[in-house]
Amino acid sequence: MGKLYLQIPEWSWNLPEENQPTYVHHWVQPLQNSKSTPDLILYGAPISRSSISVSGASLYPTEFRRSWKSFATYNLDENVDLVQYTVADAGDVTMHTTDILLSHQRIQESTAYLVENYPNATTCMIGGDHSTTACAVRGIKEAYSNETIGILQLDTHLDVRDPKELGPANGTPIRQLIDGNIVKGEHVINIGLHGYFNAKPLIDYANKHKIQMVTLKQARNQGLIRTIQKSLNQLSSKVDRIYVTVDMDVLDISVAPGVPASTPGGMTTIELFECLLEIGRHPVVNHIDFVCLDPSKDSIVAETVKTGVYAWLQFVTGRILQT
Amino acid sequence: MGKLYLQIPEWSWNLPEENQPTYVHHWVQPLQNSKSTPDLILYGAPISRSSISVSGASLYPTEFRRSWKSFATYNLDENVDLVQYTVADAGDVTMHTTDILLSHQRIQESTAYLVENYPNATTCMIGGDHSTTACAVRGIKEAYSNETIGILQLDTHLDVRDPKELGPANGTPIRQLIDGNIVKGEHVINIGLHGYFNAKPLIDYANKHKIQMVTLKQARNQGLIRTIQKSLNQLSSKVDRIYVTVDMDVLDISVAPGVPASTPGGMTTIELFECLLEIGRHPVVNHIDFVCLDPSKDSIVAETVKTGVYAWLQFVTGRILQT
Amino acid sequence: MGKLYLQIPEWSWNLPEENQPTYVHHWVQPLQNSKSTPDLILYGAPISRSSISVSGASLYPTEFRRSWKSFATYNLDENVDLVQYTVADAGDVTMHTTDILLSHQRIQESTAYLVENYPNATTCMIGGDHSTTACAVRGIKEAYSNETIGILQLDTHLDVRDPKELGPANGTPIRQLIDGNIVKGEHVINIGLHGYFNAKPLIDYANKHKIQMVTLKQARNQGLIRTIQKSLNQLSSKVDRIYVTVDMDVLDISVAPGVPASTPGGMTTIELFECLLEIGRHPVVNHIDFVCLDPSKDSIVAETVKTGVYAWLQFVTGRILQT
Amino acid sequence: MGKLYLQIPEWSWNLPEENQPTYVHHWVQPLQNSKSTPDLILYGAPISRSSISVSGASLYPTEFRRSWKSFATYNLDENVDLVQYTVADAGDVTMHTTDILLSHQRIQESTAYLVENYPNATTCMIGGDHSTTACAVRGIKEAYSNETIGILQLDTHLDVRDPKELGPANGTPIRQLIDGNIVKGEHVINIGLHGYFNAKPLIDYANKHKIQMVTLKQARNQGLIRTIQKSLNQLSSKVDRIYVTVDMDVLDISVAPGVPASTPGGMTTIELFECLLEIGRHPVVNHIDFVCLDPSKDSIVAETVKTGVYAWLQFVTGRILQT
Amino acid sequence: MGKLYLQIPEWSWNLPEENQPTYVHHWVQPLQNSKSTPDLILYGAPISRSSISVSGASLYPTEFRRSWKSFATYNLDENVDLVQYTVADAGDVTMHTTDILLSHQRIQESTAYLVENYPNATTCMIGGDHSTTACAVRGIKEAYSNETIGILQLDTHLDVRDPKELGPANGTPIRQLIDGNIVKGEHVINIGLHGYFNAKPLIDYANKHKIQMVTLKQARNQGLIRTIQKSLNQLSSKVDRIYVTVDMDVLDISVAPGVPASTPGGMTTIELFECLLEIGRHPVVNHIDFVCLDPSKDSIVAETVKTGVYAWLQFVTGRILQT
Amino acid sequence: MGKLYLQIPEWSWNLPEENQPTYVHHWVQPLQNSKSTPDLILYGAPISRSSISVSGASLYPTEFRRSWKSFATYNLDENVDLVQYTVADAGDVTMHTTDILLSHQRIQESTAYLVENYPNATTCMIGGDHSTTACAVRGIKEAYSNETIGILQLDTHLDVRDPKELGPANGTPIRQLIDGNIVKGEHVINIGLHGYFNAKPLIDYANKHKIQMVTLKQARNQGLIRTIQKSLNQLSSKVDRIYVTVDMDVLDISVAPGVPASTPGGMTTIELFECLLEIGRHPVVNHIDFVCLDPSKDSIVAETVKTGVYAWLQFVTGRILQT
Ligand SMILES: [Ca+2]
Ligand SMILES: [Ca+2]
Ligand SMILES: [Ca+2]
Ligand SMILES: [Ca+2]
Ligand SMILES: [Ca+2]
Ligand SMILES: [Ca+2]
Ligand SMILES: [Ca+2]
Ligand SMILES: [Ca+2]
Ligand SMILES: [Ca+2]
Ligand SMILES: [Ca+2]
Ligand SMILES: [Ca+2]
Ligand SMILES: [Ca+2]
Repeated sequence: MGKLYLQIPEWSWNLPEENQPTYVHHWVQPLQNSKSTPDLILYGAPISRSSISVSGASLYPTEFRRSWKSFATYNLDENVDLVQYTVADAGDVTMHTTDILLSHQRIQESTAYLVENYPNATTCMIGGDHSTTACAVRGIKEAYSNETIGILQLDTHLDVRDPKELGPANGTPIRQLIDGNIVKGEHVINIGLHGYFNAKPLIDYANKHKIQMVTLKQARNQGLIRTIQKSLNQLSSKVDRIYVTVDMDVLDISVAPGVPASTPGGMTTIELFECLLEIGRHPVVNHIDFVCLDPSKDSIVAETVKTGVYAWLQFVTGRILQT
Repeated sequence: MGKLYLQIPEWSWNLPEENQPTYVHHWVQPLQNSKSTPDLILYGAPISRSSISVSGASLYPTEFRRSWKSFATYNLDENVDLVQYTVADAGDVTMHTTDILLSHQRIQESTAYLVENYPNATTCMIGGDHSTTACAVRGIKEAYSNETIGILQLDTHLDVRDPKELGPANGTPIRQLIDGNIVKGEHVINIGLHGYFNAKPLIDYANKHKIQMVTLKQARNQGLIRTIQKSLNQLSSKVDRIYVTVDMDVLDISVAPGVPASTPGGMTTIELFECLLEIGRHPVVNHIDFVCLDPSKDSIVAETVKTGVYAWLQFVTGRILQT
Repeated sequence: MGKLYLQIPEWSWNLPEENQPTYVHHWVQPLQNSKSTPDLILYGAPISRSSISVSGASLYPTEFRRSWKSFATYNLDENVDLVQYTVADAGDVTMHTTDILLSHQRIQESTAYLVENYPNATTCMIGGDHSTTACAVRGIKEAYSNETIGILQLDTHLDVRDPKELGPANGTPIRQLIDGNIVKGEHVINIGLHGYFNAKPLIDYANKHKIQMVTLKQARNQGLIRTIQKSLNQLSSKVDRIYVTVDMDVLDISVAPGVPASTPGGMTTIELFECLLEIGRHPVVNHIDFVCLDPSKDSIVAETVKTGVYAWLQFVTGRILQT
Repeated sequence: MGKLYLQIPEWSWNLPEENQPTYVHHWVQPLQNSKSTPDLILYGAPISRSSISVSGASLYPTEFRRSWKSFATYNLDENVDLVQYTVADAGDVTMHTTDILLSHQRIQESTAYLVENYPNATTCMIGGDHSTTACAVRGIKEAYSNETIGILQLDTHLDVRDPKELGPANGTPIRQLIDGNIVKGEHVINIGLHGYFNAKPLIDYANKHKIQMVTLKQARNQGLIRTIQKSLNQLSSKVDRIYVTVDMDVLDISVAPGVPASTPGGMTTIELFECLLEIGRHPVVNHIDFVCLDPSKDSIVAETVKTGVYAWLQFVTGRILQT
Repeated sequence: MGKLYLQIPEWSWNLPEENQPTYVHHWVQPLQNSKSTPDLILYGAPISRSSISVSGASLYPTEFRRSWKSFATYNLDENVDLVQYTVADAGDVTMHTTDILLSHQRIQESTAYLVENYPNATTCMIGGDHSTTACAVRGIKEAYSNETIGILQLDTHLDVRDPKELGPANGTPIRQLIDGNIVKGEHVINIGLHGYFNAKPLIDYANKHKIQMVTLKQARNQGLIRTIQKSLNQLSSKVDRIYVTVDMDVLDISVAPGVPASTPGGMTTIELFECLLEIGRHPVVNHIDFVCLDPSKDSIVAETVKTGVYAWLQFVTGRILQT
Repeated sequence: MGKLYLQIPEWSWNLPEENQPTYVHHWVQPLQNSKSTPDLILYGAPISRSSISVSGASLYPTEFRRSWKSFATYNLDENVDLVQYTVADAGDVTMHTTDILLSHQRIQESTAYLVENYPNATTCMIGGDHSTTACAVRGIKEAYSNETIGILQLDTHLDVRDPKELGPANGTPIRQLIDGNIVKGEHVINIGLHGYFNAKPLIDYANKHKIQMVTLKQARNQGLIRTIQKSLNQLSSKVDRIYVTVDMDVLDISVAPGVPASTPGGMTTIELFECLLEIGRHPVVNHIDFVCLDPSKDSIVAETVKTGVYAWLQFVTGRILQT
């Protein structure tokens, strides 16, 4: 059922028939061409009409794929060639133009389909806005209803606004999951909070539900990588699988103009890249998403989109180093 | 009921207590301050998540009001001071973040409320995207169910895509109204069509339903103003009230960068201004809207927003000249 | 030989298997998929390092194809569905990174290949800068050495700078052809010249070689369409085949920011569209190109690229109306 | 005295020693290099801190000179080579950083110096904002106190705001001159007014002082060139010398983003160019200025600055045709 | 007297009647609504025509207020809710259009009025350019003529250019105060200097007057926060009250495009935020200003304005932590 | 011979006759005005049509000179006045419009001319793209054929793509020099590599030829300055002269939008400035270049160009501190 909604993009890279690809757009293959289970499955959830503010994050999956061409498969820092790791692109979940709930349901079903049918693959969803995370996690829970899911969230915001008021908008996914008994508040760790971007009632909710809030300042003081390690270790001792969600607005506004909600005082790109390398290394992380990147707001040199691809490749590098 | 959803904007102009306003932001008054029935009632319908493509047209009502400050109330071309005509701002219809149908319902109810309670006022809705027009016309029909409504549409597009496929999106309002038996196809006249921006099946639908399509080329050949006059005269001989809807994408892309769907080959601003003066002059026009202007795409000198305000003032000037 | 250099683009539209395409990106087919001779063959000549000033016109063939998605195949002004006319995309001529002469040679050979092998098809080259026109015309001459070629040039410039000084740069193509005895000066008509954009020695050269210079002002005074008709009729009485070259810098800078050499005082888009409809109608026109459009300089709403596609579709419409 | 304030710009074009210049930057010579009286003297008045709104029009004289390089001296429309006409650049009037009145005084004195010492030259001031016009006209009156001066103003605005309230700001020059008895209201003709950009009290002032207001609409109806001719003829029958002031905000905002006060509904560039050719032709016009062009607001292709240079060259062409 | 020049802005936030505000625009109240002495008084000094280069810093007070809506009152890093601290907005000092000295006098008088009438409130001036600091400090001296004032300046520049040459422009405030015997050079500490942005004669002046210059490099080497602490402690041992002036051009150009004089090599936003938290904590700091932020130069995501608001909130947080 | 191709720029700063310059544009003198051997000779190599991607780096030498005006000669961090050090501007190498090889030959000959005739001066070439480095190094080798040359390269890329495939393009200079036996691979040290921007075969080439690759991550871990010192010491023990080439794309994309190939994860400006101070200090460094900065892609506040000038001044400061 969920499979039905996964469609190939409007256009495709023309792949050369060479022995070994050296660029990312030649390395990633369509899922339908895969002969065996890929190591990682990509899929797009191109919806942003569920955003509180105007957002073009629905355009990111396409721009993400378009930007692959600028990246080689070789990671020089770690001396790792990514081509040994297989990545398959399942395409995008088909969205409805005006029925947001239906679109969300399709993301959930598509995720359930993928995690059920490719149990050994890491899944990576490319948003879309942050409302998609609630759908994806529900899809995983649908497939593995006996398992406990923990969430590591990199975000400037708690995302616990009230869906009763807003519906399943991009400010609500964590609360949807807690109130919907999909995930427990104590199994959610948020790293990246800072400044003046979460209203008091939201913090009260987070405290009440024991969401662990690690401000960026605290994380920097104790070492960002150490914080990631500690958080993942702690979560993995309590849950069966870990879902990592990367709201790109965790980045500082000066390096991420193409994220509508990015703010001053956020992460640097180097910090984010190091975090993702570490996250990729952790074996209990099974699912990841990257959300809220709006290419229509990016600078003309596309720095935010490039940063998005780089961040994703860091996670992939971590996967390889893990083994 | 509809009244409940009309809320004052987040901010207001501080009005000086002077004898006679000379600028638009001092001339327009909040509806709740009105002592008698105003000549024209403004209200905003700030929704654009119903757009097929990413749109920030929901931001227009606020930017429209902000831009008033750059306009004097005196029209030098016609030697008319607008202050003799009273314009009241009813505020914006409160939108729901994710429930598009609910938001649409509120626009319909708010419109019904206004046209029922201010039967002698011209209503002017500021969109939002073009989906709002279907709501507004349904609201009028709700209030005057015995009356026949005709539509004069200035648009590059027919807006007859199938709501069965898209839901009530911005490409569908005319079809919603025809299929919903609110307006007859033969009571719709579209002026401004040109080029390659309406797929064949849409033209087939329009022909089948006898929508009158006047291309911009035809209109220019026979005189744009004469075309407007003829169209309004023809409609007024057949219907009880005329609703004019101005999709700002009827303008050429070079003068309207802030309209996502504007195209090369469209109207010039002078043409649009002349049309609106003429439309304002016509007594059977009771309702008008301006839709699809997205301030977040505008050039840094805000030319599209300024053009939007100018166009609206031309309509107001026409109203005054009519009497 | 020339065939070797024609390569499919890096990416392709995924074509749905539907009965009848309604959008341009589904209508144009790769040449290698063509079963019979197409009516028109497209090919890209993505070179702009031959430009005197910095230019990204080499990026246009890709952006041209990408923009097809925004255009329906139905021309509402003329009530013509383009799908009855077959357009095949031969891909791009492969350019060398630093050997400009070699790249030019390949454009010439690829053109010769196409005109020889598809003698009944209209060819349409998408530049690249204006240096490519000299290559294409030489390629045609190579294939039809006994025929006389006439050129109708829409341009703000004469393009008769001295290749002895600059090499085969974008300011020289007409002079290359005249000095190289490929085309006679008296068989060249330039429409669109205006203002202060051709130095005196260039005008002297043009006069000496009897290039017909029709300023935009003259053309407007006598009717732009009549000027086009007269020019084509005159040329067709003297030559065997007509090559039309459209330097997009003939457009006014306010409608064509994405053409580095566009100037104030140029053509409007409506004028250009009317010209191309007329040109398309003329049976002796066998070849056309569109050059010098630099997408990297375009406004964020891509108005110049959209205008480029629209102009090309007008030519196609003319082709159909001709029959 | 006024000479003291005229300083060469910070940088200069390096002039080749060639027989005959073919580009504008090689044709215009520094005034101090002139052997005989030039036909036209240019000088810059780089002040815009006297503007009501934020303006960078003080940057225009430098950008005006920088842009000369893109213009050949040959006018193809009129087949005139400008090099026969001598243009000398007197440099910029030195402005004080904070003493606006002192800066204005220097513009007045520098103008008086130039018109006294070069009585046979046409003077052309490059603003700066419109406050500079009052200074220049006062300077001319200082030098020729017995002569009557008429003003032809191309402007969207009347510029008769009250200096008692604003000081000598850019909205006041015409009123400064009338209230200061330098120019009579009946000797001022304003062409280009339109829309909603002059408050009622200003129109009352203009009517009271018999300023002739010709709206753009009226001018277009009766022919813009005929309007210019009629206006100049009428003025020349009443005054001794005519000062023409071109506020670049007379242009439509879509062609002049780099003029802070430009509006929708203004002149096209073609209209302005035709007007200036006609104005140049008129023998009683002795002085001209171009004001309010702010290069810091221009689009990245510098369309407004290029339009400013083109407009000025049209005036020069007219000068030559006059003889 | 000074009170007369303090006017409410042209528009105001519409405040909901809720128990407790959670966003900054609902928390800050107009001064005239205050029942008791507020903890901090804000006032705008919207002048930038006193800037040496073109500046739109006069637009900042309005944009500063507009941007409040994006900030919650809760500081998550310090777990402090700002609502316990009362901030009152006194509005803007009314500026004259052309009389810079008069405008400056009004800023001085308005400051004197506020510090005299609200002796227990911290004052916070929002510029405007840096010329306003000299006015504000003179106003404080006027009110407290027996007190010694020290200045902590965060700036890339010394601001000791000679007012004899420039008048009271934005490059001169510190020199105005020293030469005018309002503040002693030895009571001025400048942190943030770096690179090549102060000419030798200015450094000579600073040395001669014993201004303490701490380059950013030195501050980083010894710890930026420690530098701030040491500087404030040292000043507080010598003066009666400390005025802190934050020239936003102390920030690096890559994070502060909307500050005309920002340069490479400047402070990061994190550094500035930490400094302001520390400054807010210091009890002897009574006055602060933020100057030179020009919203018209900001990037389209308004990163500089957002940084300006954030910086101010850090100071407020510091105030609260102090107690 | 090489001298012939060195031409003064199209425009020049007008130098005041003052005792001591305080700004960079008054300090740098044209080489032809030099009485004695200058300490450093600047020359421009304005070519970028040799770039693989579209690049306007050919515009940098002019913008570099234009930006001097914003920089004082005094370095406050080091308390050094640069005026004691003489810098002469030799102008730009004249480029051919289409013959890339000829242009490259001229850069080589001009470099040979300068290093031969000014053996005691440091040479500093301003590119242009990175292809120019190969030319410059060949020119030095031509002049000093018995000397061994080492290269310190700050770059995100190895620049060892195959000239057999691309010709002498900007991705090939290091390989040109190694394959051409001008420089040995083991005498090349590259600092700044990171991420996914060098394909596997290029790394294989580098390893085979013993190019020393120091990733940015490694350099940061061991201290960037220490890495520079160690690298220069190591090179100076093995070679006779060191050529430093600074590809500005070594900078992070968020601080260098005006470098087409800049990427996320690159150097900060502070890091680059510190490196260049250190490099300037090293006596065996005789030659330096700055390449690949494209002003046409820069942000509107010109941050990349300003960073380019700052970086160069840091090198000059280092030169002075060295002595
Ligand atoms: Ca977030
Ligand atoms: Ca989020
Ligand atoms: Ca439309
Ligand atoms: Ca529509
Ligand atoms: Ca051309
Ligand atoms: Ca051309
Ligand atoms: Ca004006
Ligand atoms: Ca004016
Ligand atoms: Ca400063
Ligand atoms: Ca300062
Ligand atoms: Ca590189
Ligand atoms: Ca390189």
